[in-house]
Amino acid sequence: MGVEIERKFLVNQEIWQQLEKPNGVHYHQGYIPSDDSCTVRVRIAGERGYLTLKGKTKGFSRKEFEYEIPFADAQEMLNEFTRTGTEKIRYHIAIGTHVWEVDEFLGPNKGLFVAEIELRDESEPFAIPAWIGEEVTNDRRYANSNLAVHPFLEW
Amino acid sequence: MGVEIERKFLVNQEIWQQLEKPNGVHYHQGYIPSDDSCTVRVRIAGERGYLTLKGKTKGFSRKEFEYEIPFADAQEMLNEFTRTGTEKIRYHIAIGTHVWEVDEFLGPNKGLFVAEIELRDESEPFAIPAWIGEEVTNDRRYANSNLAVHPFLEW
Repeated sequence: MGVEIERKFLVNQEIWQQLEKPNGVHYHQGYIPSDDSCTVRVRIAGERGYLTLKGKTKGFSRKEFEYEIPFADAQEMLNEFTRTGTEKIRYHIAIGTHVWEVDEFLGPNKGLFVAEIELRDESEPFAIPAWIGEEVTNDRRYANSNLAVHPFLEW
Repeated sequence: MGVEIERKFLVNQEIWQQLEKPNGVHYHQGYIPSDDSCTVRVRIAGERGYLTLKGKTKGFSRKEFEYEIPFADAQEMLNEFTRTGTEKIRYHIAIGTHVWEVDEFLGPNKGLFVAEIELRDESEPFAIPAWIGEEVTNDRRYANSNLAVHPFLEW
């Protein structure tokens, strides 16, 4: 499948809350216990299921292989195989030629808002809207797989 | 996807070698490092690729979710994400209404032949051909994920 090149930022919540936003989609995802070399994620996004393998991040990039799977399979895997997970509402915000993904975390990560932008290459320029805060691309604490184990409210 | 109900036997090689067999298919598979609760397998079978998650074995049964994935993805994952694996030639032998899968292992598992039969339920009867030897269904040493780490020739 290929390489995911992504940058990640905190969200200025004061500005974000005043924004008129499209409806978000409910995400529930969990992780198969694995070592650091590869993350195995099961995700339910709205009414769809996905199985995703990701390698280690190098710079802004990491290998990613994502497959849509039957919803019922994803549900069963989340119940049977994953012990930790995250829930969030994801909003898609189009700005120029890019689409920002803004995650409003729920449960033990409530209060955390993170925005991501996917790029075609590491040096691709992009517009930074007013509600974008500090960059946290290489801060491992904000990896979803880490938030599943060390949630924001316990920091 | 569901539950895999499978029984596993050693093969009587003297009888097996005299058998007229269909051509086998070359399998190369590796495992994403994970804990015991779930096995994540990447497999190349001939010219096809598969990603499979399996739960813990209970009796003769375990949860199994298998997805065909692009061949190139499977190759890349084997190279990038797996550190151990097994190679084997798999033969399909139809006997009555069942199909036996006989694996002739290669490399560090050379000399090992294992036959498996998949059943619809744990009590389903099946014919045992002359080349079937001792049952090893619940002997963890013969799990492919174990053979990848502790190969037969080192036992």
